[in-house]
Amino acid sequence: MSEKRNPSGFLVKQRAFLKLYMITMTEQERLYGLRLLDVLREEFRPFGYRPNHSEIYKALHDLIEDGVLEQVKKKKEGMKLQEVVYYRFAGENGHEKAKKYKRQLKVELDRCQSMIQKAVRDNFGIK
Amino acid sequence: MSEKRNPSGFLVKQRAFLKLYMITMTEQERLYGLRLLDVLREEFRPFGYRPNHSEIYKALHDLIEDGVLEQVKKKKEGMKLQEVVYYRFAGENGHEKAKKYKRQLKVELDRCQSMIQKAVRDNFGIK
Repeated sequence: MSEKRNPSGFLVKQRAFLKLYMITMTEQERLYGLRLLDVLREEFRPFGYRPNHSEIYKALHDLIEDGVLEQVKKKKEGMKLQEVVYYRFAGENGHEKAKKYKRQLKVELDRCQSMIQKAVRDNFGIK
Repeated sequence: MSEKRNPSGFLVKQRAFLKLYMITMTEQERLYGLRLLDVLREEFRPFGYRPNHSEIYKALHDLIEDGVLEQVKKKKEGMKLQEVVYYRFAGENGHEKAKKYKRQLKVELDRCQSMIQKAVRDNFGIK
C-alpha cells in the first residue's frame, strides 16, 4: 500500500493523515466504528479541523481494501441484540503493512514540518 | 480579502501558501512574471514540492483580482522591443491588504505546525 500524493507534492493529504490515526488507534485497540467520527472530531477541535463523515469512511475503506484492517462484530455483553463493531489488523500481514505505512507517513510529516518552517522563515523572517 | 479555507479546515491550502510567497516577493521587489514559476519551483525542490503552472497563475490572478497586486510593464534598458513584466502593490491600499493577508497566514501556518506536531506526537510518541 502506498499513498498517492498530491501530484504536485504539496502538504500531506487529509486521507493519509486520517489513515495514520486509524492505524494507531487500531494498535491501541480503540478503533470502534460507532465512535470513530466523534473521537477524531474531538481530537482536532482545538485546531479548527473537523473531518467530515465521508472523508473518514473513505479512509477506513481504503485500509480495509488494502488488507490492513478488518471489521469485527462483537456482541455486547448482557445485551441480546446489540453488536459492537471494531477494527483490527487483517490476516497475516495487515500489521506489517500498517507499520510500513506509518514509516512512510513519518517521513511525510517531517517533510511537511520542514516546509511550513521554511514558509514561516521565508515570509516572516523568524525561525 | 479573506482566504476560503478547506471547508473541513484541514491544512493550509496550496493557493494560500503560494499567495503568501508572492506577497513577500513583491515586498522584496522580486516578483517578475517570467521567472516566477522557476523561482518557486527552485525554492521547493528540496521538499519534493513542484507547484504547477496553473496553480501559480491562479494565485497571482487572485491577488490582482483582489486589488493586492498590479502588473507593470517596463522596457528593458538598451533593448528596443523587450519588456519586463513585474508586480507591485496596487493603488492606495494594496499593501495594506497584503499585510493583513500575511497576518492571517501567519496564524494559519502556526495552526498547521501545531497540528502536524500533534500528529507526530500522537502516532509516533515523540515530540
